[in-house]
Amino acid sequence: MTKARIIDGKGFALDLRTRIAAQVAALKESHGVEPGLAVVLVGNDPASQVYVRNKGQATLAAGMQSFEHKLPDTVDQATLVALVERLNRDPAVNGILVQLPLPRQIDPAVVIATIDPAKDVDGFHVENAGRLALGLPGLVPCTPLGCMMLLRDTVGDLRGLRALVLGRSGIVGKPMASLLLAADCTVTVAHSRTRDLAAECRRADILVAAVGRPEMVRGDWIKPGATVIDVGINRVAGAAEGKTRLVGDVDFAGAAEVAGAITPVPGGVGPMTIACLLLNTLTATRRQNGIAAPDDAEA
Amino acid sequence: MTKARIIDGKGFALDLRTRIAAQVAALKESHGVEPGLAVVLVGNDPASQVYVRNKGQATLAAGMQSFEHKLPDTVDQATLVALVERLNRDPAVNGILVQLPLPRQIDPAVVIATIDPAKDVDGFHVENAGRLALGLPGLVPCTPLGCMMLLRDTVGDLRGLRALVLGRSGIVGKPMASLLLAADCTVTVAHSRTRDLAAECRRADILVAAVGRPEMVRGDWIKPGATVIDVGINRVAGAAEGKTRLVGDVDFAGAAEVAGAITPVPGGVGPMTIACLLLNTLTATRRQNGIAAPDDAEA
Repeated sequence: MTKARIIDGKGFALDLRTRIAAQVAALKESHGVEPGLAVVLVGNDPASQVYVRNKGQATLAAGMQSFEHKLPDTVDQATLVALVERLNRDPAVNGILVQLPLPRQIDPAVVIATIDPAKDVDGFHVENAGRLALGLPGLVPCTPLGCMMLLRDTVGDLRGLRALVLGRSGIVGKPMASLLLAADCTVTVAHSRTRDLAAECRRADILVAAVGRPEMVRGDWIKPGATVIDVGINRVAGAAEGKTRLVGDVDFAGAAEVAGAITPVPGGVGPMTIACLLLNTLTATRRQNGIAAPDDAEA
Repeated sequence: MTKARIIDGKGFALDLRTRIAAQVAALKESHGVEPGLAVVLVGNDPASQVYVRNKGQATLAAGMQSFEHKLPDTVDQATLVALVERLNRDPAVNGILVQLPLPRQIDPAVVIATIDPAKDVDGFHVENAGRLALGLPGLVPCTPLGCMMLLRDTVGDLRGLRALVLGRSGIVGKPMASLLLAADCTVTVAHSRTRDLAAECRRADILVAAVGRPEMVRGDWIKPGATVIDVGINRVAGAAEGKTRLVGDVDFAGAAEVAGAITPVPGGVGPMTIACLLLNTLTATRRQNGIAAPDDAEA
């Protein structure tokens, strides 16, 4: 029997996108500034094409300008770098996102390092990672930013809570740990080398799972009443032959019997990522134009 | 009764400085390259003057060139920034250190951001913080680097050990946590908002204390057999009237009865900081000249 409150990331993200659209409209009205997001897609990866299309639609729906740049998968690194440099100089472009993965002839680190940190709405640039680590204002990766918004909405004040981050990627785990630390949590980062993952999980008031292993976190690993944020999106075999279904890194059914609140998969963290991309684009636009955020703004 | 092994940071640092001097001599011999460290001191703070003098002497003793730049405490920020820019361009200068604190008319963040990250031997630049957070090669702050060397020498393989970092400064706590995570520890960062510090400490195979509160960590907070690294250097009243003595953040006498190994104060972490400054200068010199480190080099 499910006891946990199900955290409605999909609904929260929709609300957030509506609020962002209102702020974009107000920005145009008050300052004549229209945020613009450039997305660069290299090659024909079907999943990447879907992501880029969804991002473009969400950008337009928020009242922002969307610029899509598609390059063949044979493109050389210098051409891609030159495109990013052009976007850096383009005043209509406030945010730049290069869809990953890139073909093997291109070093993603070189491309990301080329992006102007002020336009790095993915928050992947070394300067933004350093700013986050040092507690300076910057642009924060979208997925951990979305997790924090769900956590603050669900838990309120996070001070003094024990948070466990499962996974240590530069895109999710590490920035998540920095954000939780900045929110005054006592933060533990666990990973594949951790000796007793279950014991670490059982101590956590807040558990963020971002390891990409289907249903690895079991229900009896959850501290009663804990808030569980499941970043995993794993496709596994479904009940019917030939069918698949999406599951997170947490055994949802088991965890929902113990947790106080939990994000579902799908419909939890996933929708927040694209909403936070729009939020970062709005934030970047404001900063580039020296415009303060209104008091009720998210970021 | 003391049971713990006392970690001889002073002896380790002396050995390290001897090995660095040998590598500096070899570098001159093989490549005609002589590392140079520039130290900038603003004003007349007595403690800063002692630090700068000690750094200069250690630099010369390692066979490196030492450049000292002293500015009056009335200097304006633009003048200091211009000096740093000149040092950035000077090929004889491989490392730049601006002694902190700076007088109030100068923003230290602006000065540190001016230092070429490749010459930032203090490891305080945002780019180096980002590189450390993302696991990319860079220059690491000296004190946590020294702590890691003592830990590796004392414990050997750190994989899977539970590490607790007490304190979350950008200079010690946060980079320490990144280094321990890169060494495959399960890492917890605790701080003033942590609810039960004693309980967190008692779970730690490795405890690094960097909070600046004299003898805050009690003996009965230590897990039996744990390795304790005490970064604190606090001056407190001594036994005789008018006398003072140095103590760490850990109650040394109490902790030494329980720990497996512990650094003393003084003579533990302290001497490692200056040795690691020389190591960073050597590392920076090699990288600026495209020279690989020998296999037996520290960094």
